[in-house]
Amino acid sequence: MKSTGFVYQGSEIYGGLANTWDFGPLGIELKNNIKNAWWKRFIQEDPNNVGLQSAILMNPNVWVASGHVGGFSDPLMDCKECKSRFRADQLIEEATNHEVNCSKMTNEEMEDYIANHDIVCPKCGAKNFTGIRQFNLMFKTFQGVLEDAKSTIYLRPETAQGIFVNFKNVQRTMRKKLPFGIGQIGKSFRNEITPGNFIFRTREFEQMELEFFCKPGTDLEWFEYYCNACVQFLKDLGLSEENIRLRAHDPEELAHYSNGTSDIEYNFSEPIGWGELWGIADRTDFDLKAHQTTSKQSLEYFDQETNSKYIPYVIEPSVGVERLILAIMCEAYEMQQLENDERLVLHLHPYLAPYKVAVLPLSKKLNDQASKVFSDLASEFTCTYDDAQSIGKRYRRQDSIGTPFCVTVDFETEKDNCVTVRDRDTMEQERVALSELKDYIEQRIKF
Amino acid sequence: MKSTGFVYQGSEIYGGLANTWDFGPLGIELKNNIKNAWWKRFIQEDPNNVGLQSAILMNPNVWVASGHVGGFSDPLMDCKECKSRFRADQLIEEATNHEVNCSKMTNEEMEDYIANHDIVCPKCGAKNFTGIRQFNLMFKTFQGVLEDAKSTIYLRPETAQGIFVNFKNVQRTMRKKLPFGIGQIGKSFRNEITPGNFIFRTREFEQMELEFFCKPGTDLEWFEYYCNACVQFLKDLGLSEENIRLRAHDPEELAHYSNGTSDIEYNFSEPIGWGELWGIADRTDFDLKAHQTTSKQSLEYFDQETNSKYIPYVIEPSVGVERLILAIMCEAYEMQQLENDERLVLHLHPYLAPYKVAVLPLSKKLNDQASKVFSDLASEFTCTYDDAQSIGKRYRRQDSIGTPFCVTVDFETEKDNCVTVRDRDTMEQERVALSELKDYIEQRIKF
Repeated sequence: MKSTGFVYQGSEIYGGLANTWDFGPLGIELKNNIKNAWWKRFIQEDPNNVGLQSAILMNPNVWVASGHVGGFSDPLMDCKECKSRFRADQLIEEATNHEVNCSKMTNEEMEDYIANHDIVCPKCGAKNFTGIRQFNLMFKTFQGVLEDAKSTIYLRPETAQGIFVNFKNVQRTMRKKLPFGIGQIGKSFRNEITPGNFIFRTREFEQMELEFFCKPGTDLEWFEYYCNACVQFLKDLGLSEENIRLRAHDPEELAHYSNGTSDIEYNFSEPIGWGELWGIADRTDFDLKAHQTTSKQSLEYFDQETNSKYIPYVIEPSVGVERLILAIMCEAYEMQQLENDERLVLHLHPYLAPYKVAVLPLSKKLNDQASKVFSDLASEFTCTYDDAQSIGKRYRRQDSIGTPFCVTVDFETEKDNCVTVRDRDTMEQERVALSELKDYIEQRIKF
Repeated sequence: MKSTGFVYQGSEIYGGLANTWDFGPLGIELKNNIKNAWWKRFIQEDPNNVGLQSAILMNPNVWVASGHVGGFSDPLMDCKECKSRFRADQLIEEATNHEVNCSKMTNEEMEDYIANHDIVCPKCGAKNFTGIRQFNLMFKTFQGVLEDAKSTIYLRPETAQGIFVNFKNVQRTMRKKLPFGIGQIGKSFRNEITPGNFIFRTREFEQMELEFFCKPGTDLEWFEYYCNACVQFLKDLGLSEENIRLRAHDPEELAHYSNGTSDIEYNFSEPIGWGELWGIADRTDFDLKAHQTTSKQSLEYFDQETNSKYIPYVIEPSVGVERLILAIMCEAYEMQQLENDERLVLHLHPYLAPYKVAVLPLSKKLNDQASKVFSDLASEFTCTYDDAQSIGKRYRRQDSIGTPFCVTVDFETEKDNCVTVRDRDTMEQERVALSELKDYIEQRIKF
């Protein structure tokens, strides 16, 4: 990912900053394409849904209402011997090989479990832990010139609340009737104690969240609709059926307010294996009700059909862009054995590929003509130009970054006004007229 | 901006959070279109340039090297009588009607000036100020579980430094030769004491920055190139020549390291008037050199042509997305007098318009057919659908949000397979075949 310009370590020349990653020239193109695919499918093409961009910095009462100030915390304990710090739930789950699930245990129950089951410090082997204290995962900052409790605000830990607080504004100004959805793509921040696995879990990440508001009683139907729609979206982006599974939460796992929650899990390459990719939750009226109570503003919807007022239910499909990038890269990556050779090829969906086309002059003498081909194509989609080394090496380089089409300008081009187009996956070549080239590409990169 | 779904007050149901704004369904479409236009012009179409997305959270040494820890601060003083807080430079500049420019004054000089020139508190009229103390404009936060100096990090106050620290990574992995540019679009945060004028100056904002690296000695040429390119970009987006001016900084204003800095100023609607829109600076090798010194990593470029090593010079065109939205909205807005009527019309460039097409069935009986037209168009670009109220009212509604084309499905449509297309600006109508509709629109919304 680094050597091909997809992802670099954040602040690398300063030794990095734990768990931050920067997206290089190819990484940001891939990321933008994924975001555009989501926006196209869930906002642009869906007549029910609209977009939004709320601010990262919000009134702190938002996080009181949402429960994040009170409840969005990890149970931490320290090893008194080696001073390492752990999440109590992870200590137990890892020590029991995930046979024990801590999601419904209280801190006291976890402390007791650790004391009574010979769970030791994974670092030094001692059995001498402090008690649990809750650590809030929201990043804190201060707005204005004073650093005190009154000016404390938070970096949002999710984009969803920015949608809920705007529910009434959007519904009114867009004159929306139920059911309708509001989608948002944006950065969120969680001060995770144990982030990791490259870009699988990062403290700073981009979410693509949809809050789909519907009439109570129709929610389970829409919940199923979105479970299917999200799976279909992943398949359409090229993830294969056998690497995707939908896991419904058990009743014990389910939040008290939820009518149903499912995770789409993906089988990431080793060492990650199966992991959560996309959460879809039926959150009922929990969020809007909480904001109505705390803000004392009515968030009820007036239903003209039934002449009644109620708080809508909401279905929330929520996915992280970075984790989706990781899934897509795992799926696309192949070290392919050829007859007398091997090649690294990224089978990215053409819509997602950072470059749609590489323009390759067969000789540097053809640079003028090839540059014109580049300019013409680059007015429509992102392309690259490469005139260094042999054509074979250039093909391999494009294969390894997922470029679906290589367009070679040769000495015939001037005479026949055609170029050779090579397909990344089949490696087959085809002669295409310059006048038809743009259409040829456009038809093959649609999503 | 609010009633049409462009911009809402941030966290409005909680009484807001000072100076935060949320972009509604139309605002985010406009914002995305502006960002896409910039990316298309300065990254996609330019064979020299590539994109990047660096993290918002960076190693704090980045901000030591860049000078932000030491120097990115405002000189604040308080009125001892009414406890109001002011920026000393703004106190002087406003009291002297901007005849005095404080940009080169020391804090002592400002304190003396205020004491000796009868400058009083604008709030209460008293003349009893504290001394100046420097207030750093970076938002502070803490990564990890301890809130102490060791874990203090900052929200980036600009995207530029994320580019500088990746200069070597990008140059190497993309095998770039000078001159080349690295562009980035992303959020930055400045804890301004006096933000304001709606979205003109906000604490949280999105920047579009390009760092264009070139050989020392060629920098002034590229500086001029980018001054022209940025002005041209604004004109191409629809800003009119008479509302744009390029202002070169005076020698006194110029940073000591800069070979030249110009602001593109725009004549915003009252009460803002002329204001800075886009800064273009020749920053020489100041930034890379500072990072090389602090990080102790070589940031030199090896020039194969001259067989020599040097630190490139850099040209930095930097513009804020929200401020550009404001300029574009100021320019587009017209309350137009018609023969017997008036209409509010937003003359947005079609590429920027939130909706490219409004699909309007003449009667609700035509909803099925109109929905098909909508689906077909919505697979290509963002559209809206409106079947409420008279066709005249629907036209006005679309005019007021800048939709360039209204497509009316009527009772003839079934017979002749044509629709009526109405142009927003001329209000002229044209009969267009359904089979040609997508092409018709596509040709007219290009940028």
